[in-house]
Amino acid sequence: MTDRSPARIIACVDTGVDDAMALAYLLASPAECELAGVLAGYGNVDAATAERNTRLVLDLFGRPDIPVFRSSTHPSWADSFIPDAGCARFHGADGLGGYVEGSRSGTGRSASSADSDDLDESDDLATAVPDAARPDGVVSVGGYRIDDPHANPAGGWRVSPFADGEDDSPRLDGIGFLIDQVRRYGRGVTVLATGPLTDMDAAIGRAPDIAGKLRLVMMGGTLSQPGNCWDAVAETNVIQDPEAADRVLHSGADVTMVGLDVTHRCLLPSKAADRWRSTGTERGRFLARLADFSIAANLEADPAIFAGGMPLHDPLAAAVALDPTLVSTFGIALRAETATGDFTGVRGRTTGDPVGLVTPDAPRVHVALDVDADRFTSRFVDRLAALCAA
Amino acid sequence: MTDRSPARIIACVDTGVDDAMALAYLLASPAECELAGVLAGYGNVDAATAERNTRLVLDLFGRPDIPVFRSSTHPSWADSFIPDAGCARFHGADGLGGYVEGSRSGTGRSASSADSDDLDESDDLATAVPDAARPDGVVSVGGYRIDDPHANPAGGWRVSPFADGEDDSPRLDGIGFLIDQVRRYGRGVTVLATGPLTDMDAAIGRAPDIAGKLRLVMMGGTLSQPGNCWDAVAETNVIQDPEAADRVLHSGADVTMVGLDVTHRCLLPSKAADRWRSTGTERGRFLARLADFSIAANLEADPAIFAGGMPLHDPLAAAVALDPTLVSTFGIALRAETATGDFTGVRGRTTGDPVGLVTPDAPRVHVALDVDADRFTSRFVDRLAALCAA
Repeated sequence: MTDRSPARIIACVDTGVDDAMALAYLLASPAECELAGVLAGYGNVDAATAERNTRLVLDLFGRPDIPVFRSSTHPSWADSFIPDAGCARFHGADGLGGYVEGSRSGTGRSASSADSDDLDESDDLATAVPDAARPDGVVSVGGYRIDDPHANPAGGWRVSPFADGEDDSPRLDGIGFLIDQVRRYGRGVTVLATGPLTDMDAAIGRAPDIAGKLRLVMMGGTLSQPGNCWDAVAETNVIQDPEAADRVLHSGADVTMVGLDVTHRCLLPSKAADRWRSTGTERGRFLARLADFSIAANLEADPAIFAGGMPLHDPLAAAVALDPTLVSTFGIALRAETATGDFTGVRGRTTGDPVGLVTPDAPRVHVALDVDADRFTSRFVDRLAALCAA
Repeated sequence: MTDRSPARIIACVDTGVDDAMALAYLLASPAECELAGVLAGYGNVDAATAERNTRLVLDLFGRPDIPVFRSSTHPSWADSFIPDAGCARFHGADGLGGYVEGSRSGTGRSASSADSDDLDESDDLATAVPDAARPDGVVSVGGYRIDDPHANPAGGWRVSPFADGEDDSPRLDGIGFLIDQVRRYGRGVTVLATGPLTDMDAAIGRAPDIAGKLRLVMMGGTLSQPGNCWDAVAETNVIQDPEAADRVLHSGADVTMVGLDVTHRCLLPSKAADRWRSTGTERGRFLARLADFSIAANLEADPAIFAGGMPLHDPLAAAVALDPTLVSTFGIALRAETATGDFTGVRGRTTGDPVGLVTPDAPRVHVALDVDADRFTSRFVDRLAALCAA
C-alpha cells in the first residue's frame, strides 16, 4: 500500500467495543488511511453515548482534531431508540466494556485516561423512567418494537434525548458533511459504516445524486451464516433499521458487505489483549479492557463458536475499506427483509433479491464470503500494539 | 465430453414435473451418462406415484430396462406422508401436470402413450379418508406436521400405503442397490438426488462406510436466495426432511448443492415447449405438457420472478452431475436447521454451520452460487428436442 496515497475515509459508527477498535485501527494505519470525519449515531448505544465514546477514542489515540458529528438518534421506522440488554451484554452499558463506568469489574477508566472534557454530563441525558411511563410514539428497543417480547431495555426505559425533531440539527450537520464529501470526492472517499444504515439512507434520501458516486463498506448482515439476533436469521446492524438497509442495498451505490460470513472467522484471542496491556500505556489498558470484556461476553454466549476469541466485526470492515484484497466477494442483488411471516421471510434478514436475480441490470452488492483471516488478524494486532506503544 | 466414458449415475427422484424432465435429460445424454438405476420416493408426490411416473418416463423415452426401485415412503421424522396442495399446484395431482389424469385441461395422456402395464391400479393405493379420520402417528403433509396450519393436503387425507414397516421391503432393495453401487464404484458413480434426502440418509445410516466414497449432486436448499416454502426461508426438498438433510450435509460425503441460488436463474420459456410439441411425437407432447403446466403455475405464483418461465430445478442438477463446469461453487460447512424459534433459526433452512466455520477439518459442501444459465438452458432444450424427434 506504500505506493498509494492514503484512502480518504468517513466513518459512520455506533461506538461500541468493536467500533472503538475499528477507529483505533484506522488511526493506526496512517499510510493507508486519512480519517476525514466521523458520524456517531445510535445502535450499540444511544447516539449521545456513541459520540462520547468516539471522542474518547480519538482523544486517547491523539487525533482530537478529527471532526465528530452526532448523527441518527433512532431508526428510520421509529420515533425514538432505547439500547437493549443484548447491546449492553456485548458492549457494556457504557459501550466500552465498563471502561468509562467501571461497572463490570470496578476497574474502570482511570484518572489518567483521556481528557474528561469530552465526557460532559450534558451529553449523557438518558433518563431512566418508570416502567409504567414508557415513551410515546414508535419506540425501537435495540431494533425491536417496544411491544415485542424481545424488546429488553438495559437499565430501564431510557429514552434518547434526541427523539423529537427539535434536537435533530446535529444529525443534519453530519449527514450534510457526508453528502458534501461524496459530492466532492466521489469514489475517492470511502464511507465505512459499522452501525445501522440509517445515516446512509438519510444521506441518499436527501441527496439522491450521491448514490451513483458512493463507495460504501458496511459491517452488517449475513448471507451464508446464521444471524446473531434472537431468530438466528437477522444480523444486529440490519435488524436495527431493515427499511434503511433495504433502500441502501437497492440504491445503486458501490456497496461491499462485510457480514458474519467473514467476521465470525476473524477471532481475537486473549493473548492479543495481553500484548496490548503489556505496553504499560493507557492506550494498551483501554484496548485490553475492550477485548477482555468482549471475549468473555462472546465466550459465555456461544462457546462452540467463540472459543477462539471475540469476532472482529467492525475492525474487519475498517481493514477492508483500506485493503479490499483481504476478502473475496460475491456479487449479488441483495435485499433486507422488512417483515416476518408467510411469503415475507424474516425481518432483518439480508438475502438475495429474487427479482434482482433475473434482472440483468439490478444493482449488485459485493458480499464478502471469504477472508484471509490470519493476515487480517495479525495485521490488526500488530498495528494496535504499535499504536499503544507510540 | 466426448473423450470421456459416460458418467455412471444413480438417480433418487420424487417424480414430479421437473424430475421427469431431469430423467429425460439424462436419457438424452448417452455420451455423458449411463443411468444405472433409479430410486423413486415420496416428495412431490407419494412414493407409489413417483415410481409410476418414473417408469412412465423411462418407457416413453425407450429405456424400460433401467431398474426402478420404490424407495422412501415418508420422511425420517414421520410415520407417513401425504402430498400437499403446494406440490399438486406445481406438479399436478398426478405429478405430471395432468398428463396421466388429464385433470387440468382434459387433454391428458393419450391412448398411444407409454405402455399402461406400469400404471397398474395396485400401485395407486392412496385412499381418501374423511377429515375426521386422520391417520395416526406422526404425519407429514408435504413436509409439515399435520397440525401445522400450512399442512394442506391435496385431495383429502391420502395416506401412503407404505406407512408401516411391513411394506418397506421395496425401499430396502433400493437403498441396498445404492449402497452396493457406491461400495463398488466409489466416486466413479454419482448419485443425483432431486427430492428429499431421506434415501441418502438411510443409506449412510445403514452403511456408514460409504459416506467417504459418496459423490452426491443434490437439488435442494438455498444459501443466498429466499426459500420457496411458506416462510420464504426453507426450500421444498429440505423442508420435507431437514433431519435427514442435516445428517447428510455433515456426513463427509462429497456433496454439490444445486439450490435456488442457481435454479431460479435457469428459466424455461414457453417457446421451448412449442419446439418440443412441434416434433409431433408423443414424447414432444409429453414434455410440452409438463412445461406448459409448470410455466403457468410458476407465473401465477410469482410473476415478478417467473416471467421468463419455469425454474429448471432438477434438470440443472442432472446437468451438473454430468458437467460440473456449468456452475461455480462455494465451499462451506453447511447445516439444515431442524427447529424454528429463538436461537434455532428456521426449520428447513440451509445455512452455513457456524461451528464448521471455525473448525478447519469440518466437511465442506460445494454450494453452486453461479451458473452459466444460457449454456445450460440451450443445451437442455436442444437435447430434449433431439430426443423427442428420435
